[in-house]
Amino acid sequence: MIDSAPGLVEALRAAVPGGVLTEPVDLIAYGFDGTFYERTPPLVVLPETVEQVSAVHRIATARRIPITPRAMGSGLSGGAVPLAGSIVLGVARMDRILEIDEIDRVAVVQAGVINAHLQAEVEKRGLFYPPDPSSLKQSAIGGNVAENAGGARCLKYGVTGDYVLALQVVLPDGTVIRTGGRTVKNVTGYDLRRLFTGAEGTLGTITEITLKLLAKPKHARAAMAVFDRIDDAAHAVTAVMASGVLPSAIELVDNLTMRCIEENSPIGLPLDADAILIFGVDGNYAGVLADELATIERLAREHGTREVRVAHDAAESERLWTARRSISPALARRRPNKLGEDVCIPPRAIAELVRRVRAIAAEHALEIPLFGHIGDGNLHPNILCDKTNAEEMARVAVAARAIFEATVELGGTLSGEHGIGLLKKQFMELDLGPDTLAVMRKIKDALDPLGIMNPGKVFPDPGGMEAFRL
Amino acid sequence: MIDSAPGLVEALRAAVPGGVLTEPVDLIAYGFDGTFYERTPPLVVLPETVEQVSAVHRIATARRIPITPRAMGSGLSGGAVPLAGSIVLGVARMDRILEIDEIDRVAVVQAGVINAHLQAEVEKRGLFYPPDPSSLKQSAIGGNVAENAGGARCLKYGVTGDYVLALQVVLPDGTVIRTGGRTVKNVTGYDLRRLFTGAEGTLGTITEITLKLLAKPKHARAAMAVFDRIDDAAHAVTAVMASGVLPSAIELVDNLTMRCIEENSPIGLPLDADAILIFGVDGNYAGVLADELATIERLAREHGTREVRVAHDAAESERLWTARRSISPALARRRPNKLGEDVCIPPRAIAELVRRVRAIAAEHALEIPLFGHIGDGNLHPNILCDKTNAEEMARVAVAARAIFEATVELGGTLSGEHGIGLLKKQFMELDLGPDTLAVMRKIKDALDPLGIMNPGKVFPDPGGMEAFRL
Repeated sequence: MIDSAPGLVEALRAAVPGGVLTEPVDLIAYGFDGTFYERTPPLVVLPETVEQVSAVHRIATARRIPITPRAMGSGLSGGAVPLAGSIVLGVARMDRILEIDEIDRVAVVQAGVINAHLQAEVEKRGLFYPPDPSSLKQSAIGGNVAENAGGARCLKYGVTGDYVLALQVVLPDGTVIRTGGRTVKNVTGYDLRRLFTGAEGTLGTITEITLKLLAKPKHARAAMAVFDRIDDAAHAVTAVMASGVLPSAIELVDNLTMRCIEENSPIGLPLDADAILIFGVDGNYAGVLADELATIERLAREHGTREVRVAHDAAESERLWTARRSISPALARRRPNKLGEDVCIPPRAIAELVRRVRAIAAEHALEIPLFGHIGDGNLHPNILCDKTNAEEMARVAVAARAIFEATVELGGTLSGEHGIGLLKKQFMELDLGPDTLAVMRKIKDALDPLGIMNPGKVFPDPGGMEAFRL
Repeated sequence: MIDSAPGLVEALRAAVPGGVLTEPVDLIAYGFDGTFYERTPPLVVLPETVEQVSAVHRIATARRIPITPRAMGSGLSGGAVPLAGSIVLGVARMDRILEIDEIDRVAVVQAGVINAHLQAEVEKRGLFYPPDPSSLKQSAIGGNVAENAGGARCLKYGVTGDYVLALQVVLPDGTVIRTGGRTVKNVTGYDLRRLFTGAEGTLGTITEITLKLLAKPKHARAAMAVFDRIDDAAHAVTAVMASGVLPSAIELVDNLTMRCIEENSPIGLPLDADAILIFGVDGNYAGVLADELATIERLAREHGTREVRVAHDAAESERLWTARRSISPALARRRPNKLGEDVCIPPRAIAELVRRVRAIAAEHALEIPLFGHIGDGNLHPNILCDKTNAEEMARVAVAARAIFEATVELGGTLSGEHGIGLLKKQFMELDLGPDTLAVMRKIKDALDPLGIMNPGKVFPDPGGMEAFRL
């Protein structure tokens, strides 16, 4: 493709001096994300300014070359894996925090700023940026916005999109627009911020983000409740959420997931239990947190917990959260690959979905560790597999489809926080129906008439449902 | 127009039996909203089901008849006033609460359900629907969603759009779609909920809404701080917001606004003060609220308040909030008309905007009471006027434009919660710039290719800026 586009490399090198990679050894790393997909791009361009991003778009538009925008490539839906001969437009070099304003309570960042770096910087100033995807030490804000990433604290604080006050976006043809501003309330025109947020780079490249910040809560605590039956854990969650206590997080970790964590880096999880819940609470009043933890403990006991362990200091809390965030790498040690799902279901249906996922695992003789943000119904059944084993992958495909069908039947949705990307696109019509999907298609065609932005993502390929394509 | 559309009335009567109004005396009430605009529609249709709404859209599409969707017509931007010969499609008869689910914490309502009615019903069940536009006793959820309405409690709890989990929307051609679901997290496809929310009926008619509910806070209190200088009030707000206390509301009421309230229904406001702030706090711990009020009082005193009055019981709190909600009708008693603005500015610029609005009032010899949700920078300068006085209205136009220009210059936006409608459409390019507006236009053209949905709204008419058209 690149060979058949004479002058392309030269044009890009002129537009982005020192930022064009063409050597195969350099390109390989840009063909992966956090899924098992891999497609090495023909070329990678790494601009440092919005003007350079715009120039890349203009060159791509003039030559009808598709572009896959990429931040840190830690996504879990294949959104950043380049298809259809796409060049990769990486924003990793655009990694500056441009502004943190304590009075206006906003941060302005380039798309390549790492989430954890931003969190650390705002917390130094007594401020707080809540969205905390498990990838927070690797993932960048631009990718978080493109996928509308979540995280554990989203139960209390909302997802990435709830913090996006303004975006600078490069449209497919290279036009640079701004949408939104520095105010929390803004109803001037259509909500384009929310349209580009979560659009997974299919409508343009996000280059700069203005984020809402909160005041940092003065205290945070964590507790673990141990259950012999995962059903009881699900009912305990419902009881806590109905009690008026709003934890910052409620995380489920089932037995198989605990075993993976302990194999990877032991922290003494109760491997004889069916599941644990990890609760976080935060706020400005230590006495209130103690009272909330007491309520949580009481409700957990009423719903069959055999033990509640309250973390007594910040270090103990941090160990619990580190264990939670280490799940993804821990699973990768048990089997070569995983198909990580991200279904979100209404509270009423959580226990039933858990039962069905376990039945699907048994039926297809697969290991499916189950964990996730159970407080808001956003669970991550991960189907462990080896992608070189065709027979196993056929079972994985059937199981993945069965999980999606159960989710939609129970009133849930395909993705709570990872996005659709490549992994779930064939199920979009199952979830949305043809007419809603047609509205999305009209918007895509109106804003990207040449179809050069991240082709092959979000929208299903013709030919109906299938689990995924390797 | 209707006369030139033979068979239209008959077709609509067949589609919506008993729901078509054509008598002039019946039509007049559908030509107003909360602004000074008035355009009597040629015809009003009041469907009771989504199938009837769809049938009306199909008839309108077939005959290229424009439609203006309308809920209760209490809006403050002219969004529901029918232009270009539009028929009015009113959803007032679709006023059923279909479901309130305590476990899933959602309400499903038809578009015509009155906000206060929903609030009362959910609160009976210990639940809470926070968005509280001042019109809450008159306005319907469908209109709240169409304009993405705010309210005082949005400081802590967010705006209407933050509670919209799912929408049923009738597209211009009559296709009925659903977007979103019953889960709080949902990133399956483009965020169409947020696109239709705040689109002011220009992309389709919203017929059913699934709303997120919270647990009702157990306690709420209010306090009033009295300031001799409005500047000090603005600085006190900044100090409170930086302190870590997040009030449910911080409302500004300036001297002229207080005088209007007292003329209308006296409650003993301090008419010798330059401005007051009304603070609300809520939560589950009475002791915390007392402590937060003490912090607010301390900071208010540090910033020059001469008096803080804490409401000692629910009745006293309710009187304060009733006074706040009565401002709009109180202004209407002082002068025949008002041009109510809804600018939203970053916290840093609040004091400066207040100064500029007062300077603009003095320069143009106009009364501009100033009040609003100062905690999130969403202020409502209301230019009092008599629309039959052409000379005065010319000054009003110049002053309105000056306020918008000052707002944009200070980093703010035209509308925080009322929408653009008719009132602010000529200023859209000033705020958004031509390229962002062009993106909106592409979306509009893609989803409403015949241009039949609420014509003449949101997008500017050709010919550049002017303040407004009567």
